[in-house]
Amino acid sequence: MKIGIVGATGYGGADLLRLLHQHPKVNEIILYSSSQEGVHIHESYPHLSTIYEQSLNEINVEKIAKQVDIVFLATPPGVSAELSEPLVNLGVQVIDLSGDLRIKDTEIYQSWYKRESASQSIIDQAVYGLPEWNKEAIEKAKVVANPGCYPTATLLGLAPLIKANLIELDSIIVDAKSGTSGAGRSPSAITHFSEMNENFKAYQINKHKHTPEIEQILQQWDEGVEVITFQPHLVPMVRGIMATIYAKAKAPITESDLRKLYEENYQQAPFVRVRPEGAFPATKEVYGSNFCDIGVTYDKRTGRITVVSVIDNVVKGASGQAIQNLNIMNGWEEQTGLAFVPVYP
Amino acid sequence: MKIGIVGATGYGGADLLRLLHQHPKVNEIILYSSSQEGVHIHESYPHLSTIYEQSLNEINVEKIAKQVDIVFLATPPGVSAELSEPLVNLGVQVIDLSGDLRIKDTEIYQSWYKRESASQSIIDQAVYGLPEWNKEAIEKAKVVANPGCYPTATLLGLAPLIKANLIELDSIIVDAKSGTSGAGRSPSAITHFSEMNENFKAYQINKHKHTPEIEQILQQWDEGVEVITFQPHLVPMVRGIMATIYAKAKAPITESDLRKLYEENYQQAPFVRVRPEGAFPATKEVYGSNFCDIGVTYDKRTGRITVVSVIDNVVKGASGQAIQNLNIMNGWEEQTGLAFVPVYP
Amino acid sequence: MKIGIVGATGYGGADLLRLLHQHPKVNEIILYSSSQEGVHIHESYPHLSTIYEQSLNEINVEKIAKQVDIVFLATPPGVSAELSEPLVNLGVQVIDLSGDLRIKDTEIYQSWYKRESASQSIIDQAVYGLPEWNKEAIEKAKVVANPGCYPTATLLGLAPLIKANLIELDSIIVDAKSGTSGAGRSPSAITHFSEMNENFKAYQINKHKHTPEIEQILQQWDEGVEVITFQPHLVPMVRGIMATIYAKAKAPITESDLRKLYEENYQQAPFVRVRPEGAFPATKEVYGSNFCDIGVTYDKRTGRITVVSVIDNVVKGASGQAIQNLNIMNGWEEQTGLAFVPVYP
Amino acid sequence: MKIGIVGATGYGGADLLRLLHQHPKVNEIILYSSSQEGVHIHESYPHLSTIYEQSLNEINVEKIAKQVDIVFLATPPGVSAELSEPLVNLGVQVIDLSGDLRIKDTEIYQSWYKRESASQSIIDQAVYGLPEWNKEAIEKAKVVANPGCYPTATLLGLAPLIKANLIELDSIIVDAKSGTSGAGRSPSAITHFSEMNENFKAYQINKHKHTPEIEQILQQWDEGVEVITFQPHLVPMVRGIMATIYAKAKAPITESDLRKLYEENYQQAPFVRVRPEGAFPATKEVYGSNFCDIGVTYDKRTGRITVVSVIDNVVKGASGQAIQNLNIMNGWEEQTGLAFVPVYP
Repeated sequence: MKIGIVGATGYGGADLLRLLHQHPKVNEIILYSSSQEGVHIHESYPHLSTIYEQSLNEINVEKIAKQVDIVFLATPPGVSAELSEPLVNLGVQVIDLSGDLRIKDTEIYQSWYKRESASQSIIDQAVYGLPEWNKEAIEKAKVVANPGCYPTATLLGLAPLIKANLIELDSIIVDAKSGTSGAGRSPSAITHFSEMNENFKAYQINKHKHTPEIEQILQQWDEGVEVITFQPHLVPMVRGIMATIYAKAKAPITESDLRKLYEENYQQAPFVRVRPEGAFPATKEVYGSNFCDIGVTYDKRTGRITVVSVIDNVVKGASGQAIQNLNIMNGWEEQTGLAFVPVYP
Repeated sequence: MKIGIVGATGYGGADLLRLLHQHPKVNEIILYSSSQEGVHIHESYPHLSTIYEQSLNEINVEKIAKQVDIVFLATPPGVSAELSEPLVNLGVQVIDLSGDLRIKDTEIYQSWYKRESASQSIIDQAVYGLPEWNKEAIEKAKVVANPGCYPTATLLGLAPLIKANLIELDSIIVDAKSGTSGAGRSPSAITHFSEMNENFKAYQINKHKHTPEIEQILQQWDEGVEVITFQPHLVPMVRGIMATIYAKAKAPITESDLRKLYEENYQQAPFVRVRPEGAFPATKEVYGSNFCDIGVTYDKRTGRITVVSVIDNVVKGASGQAIQNLNIMNGWEEQTGLAFVPVYP
Repeated sequence: MKIGIVGATGYGGADLLRLLHQHPKVNEIILYSSSQEGVHIHESYPHLSTIYEQSLNEINVEKIAKQVDIVFLATPPGVSAELSEPLVNLGVQVIDLSGDLRIKDTEIYQSWYKRESASQSIIDQAVYGLPEWNKEAIEKAKVVANPGCYPTATLLGLAPLIKANLIELDSIIVDAKSGTSGAGRSPSAITHFSEMNENFKAYQINKHKHTPEIEQILQQWDEGVEVITFQPHLVPMVRGIMATIYAKAKAPITESDLRKLYEENYQQAPFVRVRPEGAFPATKEVYGSNFCDIGVTYDKRTGRITVVSVIDNVVKGASGQAIQNLNIMNGWEEQTGLAFVPVYP
Repeated sequence: MKIGIVGATGYGGADLLRLLHQHPKVNEIILYSSSQEGVHIHESYPHLSTIYEQSLNEINVEKIAKQVDIVFLATPPGVSAELSEPLVNLGVQVIDLSGDLRIKDTEIYQSWYKRESASQSIIDQAVYGLPEWNKEAIEKAKVVANPGCYPTATLLGLAPLIKANLIELDSIIVDAKSGTSGAGRSPSAITHFSEMNENFKAYQINKHKHTPEIEQILQQWDEGVEVITFQPHLVPMVRGIMATIYAKAKAPITESDLRKLYEENYQQAPFVRVRPEGAFPATKEVYGSNFCDIGVTYDKRTGRITVVSVIDNVVKGASGQAIQNLNIMNGWEEQTGLAFVPVYP
């Protein structure tokens, strides 16, 4: 199988290269980049020296379609909106790591993203690539909208509660914390080391683009959901997301019932690990891997359920989940090429 | 004025020394420690070399009462419960940085702290040392219970909303994040560098001792408050706390009214700084200083108010606030010796 | 092949588990620990949940010899000195990650390590496991002394210069910098997060135990070597070592000749990567992998050669090199199970 | 006294504001900036809110000369070369924190800085502002070239050895490590958080501009000095420099003689602290302060002396030393306004 990566010079693209190096079904990888055409990838990323040294090719839909079977789009906003549809029409499988194809309602997209949306036709074709809850659709998909990093951690944490109808739907608050890699490789004032180290920041207060993505999926699961509060923060670390999720329980629930619920929901999900009673995951426990680790508890005092859900934002939040989707789309074992043990410490 | 510091080898004690070095009313500082009696303070803290080189004295209430006018207790749990009352009875002003004297209800203390409380008589005498909201009582106090770090950030963030009766009292969720210095100087698995760097952790889920402290004060402000959700996390940084506070507004409110409310509440408070509309503070913006910086906004979509409140946990959350109380108890200008500009970057 | 890991609860042991998970020749792994017998490994290391959940067994030489073919000793000082010889005598291959078997001269060992050395007989049998320069001996070894982390980075950086007789042997200065993981998992004042973050420390000035190890190998390569200056430092990061090596050139040398020298020396070494002219590696470029990346230059002004050599101290400095030795001892391809792309960023 | 700061939006300028806030001789501070004219300083630096809120003025030499008595130039390369001479001619004291006026030999300047030097006349007037070794000249200076951060740590560490003629002058190697704040506030790929955290980098190999500055001063102290090796590295922290200095002793020396030498050299220097035998400073021990802490030892095995010298690069390496020079130029007590205890932890 021949794989193309468009936007190979971003962190998502680079991490795809890391993971695909151990993927047994991948024969060849061809890289595309508009900004660094002609550059050799290891010049931009010396850690890839001797492993990947190919040069970056220009982005030309017809050429790409001739050269590869599948394309990962690890591109800035707007690129996938242009490329996905012609690629799909030329018979190429598309896995889009950007946010271009995730929001079904183009008005909502435009109001949160402040830009034109992709065409309705490609949006309609795009399947939301959260394998734990959408596997059947992904199996038949020609184009997958790979979920955002925050939505992945949040939705995997919330799903069992929503599906079991256990919580007040207007009570959901997601306080999320991320490492800086989610902001990408372009230097900025916010992620300048001297500004970010020994610092903790809230950002995009009530305005983060991942909010409507989370709400859309929750509404698919339970139409009673209207809005949630989602608030992201930046942690002085590179990789990792924690979503701390608060919701009012409709009725008291025991710790063992809560745990049983999560374990049953995820017993078929090789990448979701539920912690035992009294234990909660830290982000480092999934570092570099495709796992989503979850801890959950009910507080008798307040009647609230707290869920702690962690992922490596670059892997389960981007590249790893994209490969998980690749596997499912092609009928391969879901874990193929993803058996990475987290790097600890 | 002669000052004693009991527990001078902890981070709170060391930071008191940093701040008191520039305090014009302090003539002499005498240090006490049970664990390091006889050691010179700069051997334990080389950063104090040439500035403070006195040795640590044994803890003996009678001797302390003869040697100093005021004592800061920067001690582990239980020490203040023993020392405060005899010191006060011997005429020494006591400022207690530990949690021993904060909780008025000894049953609540015992259920959260899992230890015997101090005597009811000294607890009754202890004045809660949050100067922005309790200045008159502090002025007359003989013994002050210096607030916890999380309660300081949280209460200063919530007070204007509670006092103006703007929020649903059963909707308060405080998601707090702290640097590691709050855990003290004793090495532990949780704060081992290799375990904590590039990591983000939730801890004490629904069990943190600062919960009843926050609730107690909120109840003093509005007896309608019953319980809150308070959830702390550890950030891979040393200093700094952010409390992100969520609460349902009783009615819509404009950004300018919200800001006016906070500005009016804190116009007499030299250490509270309210950010302009659309701006929210990061922890580094108060690093090393006694400021509490606050940003606030209302979300029309969800009807929730979000408050972002940051402090340096070692300063406004401990040593700096203790000196602020010292000043008030003695009729000095509140800012005396505390005019530190935050260290940035 | 059945593998035993003694000391599985240290960082070296845990990283062996990470790497061995992808090793095609390993059928079974049995874990041994004196301190945590009976505990399940994922209780100590939640990141291993669902991957490794076996319990830790007591350390009993006879039982170990019956259960496994090969043993990794990832143990504190002194344990290997006791266990290695009986294990070898019982026909078990031993790869020792501790420093017990590295120093051939027991007097030198005792003067630097301040403890009794292992028996001369097992020391004599132990082969120094630096594959790039000792492959033939490793192929026949029954017991391998896996090199220290600092010696690995230093010796790979210095070897080409020594072997080509290019530098003044009394001019070698190695200024080394390490992440904290090399100090192990036990909490200590030095590696307490609040003490180590935003801090940089020199330690063991002129006294580090890796000094005689480096000197011993250099002397094997050129008996003219007497002493070197080796000075380690602690960096506020978890993984990674950089050795910055300074030596006086015997004669001027061009950049291209210098590079050619290094490239020729390491063209058969799959884990050593030489940077092009003007480029020098950073530690993150080998994070989580078994690579040693090297940059080198000659300064006309001073007549000195500078070598920058980086490794991941936990991998090429411990677990990864141990597996490289495992492969060589058993006639497998040197890179088997080690094809990890560095985790970047 | 009225103070002007040109380039107030860089880290050096911001830290001057922090320190000057407590300086008793300073009546008024006026800020100048070419890039952010009209902006209020606290908009650029929210940590200054309520303390400094003045707006930034355009840079006009005549106006500056009318408005202030003394100017700090905390400006990018080339600005001081233009402004210093006219300002001095108009009777304004100038303290230049940039590198424009430090190098006396304009050819050397041009070959290392790759740009035109300032005029010979202003360079001739400029006094090198290292107060511990140049106090008399500074007292009479009209324009001071404030030393670079690396030269400050290095020269204070080397001076006693050079002045006492104890070391081989061709054997000096300075391996230096710095936090990222020295690179300034402009975002760059090198100091992007995701690239710099959990990373350690060597940079400007044999090419750093501070090399000729160190050599120039060493040559003034002993004309036998020709060249040194100076190699800087970037540490994943914000503030702090450590210079680890190696030099061959001409003859063996005892630890007590070595210490006596340093103590005698610095007994009049309030900001230099010499550690006792066996102790060496870490960078955090001077954080936020104007101290330079030094440890030193002689290694019998190698005949080399090792000096560990640490400063806060933003303070003693820039703003604090500038104020120390301000004090000396004006006949004030050297420590005026600089009595900051380091912020620890």
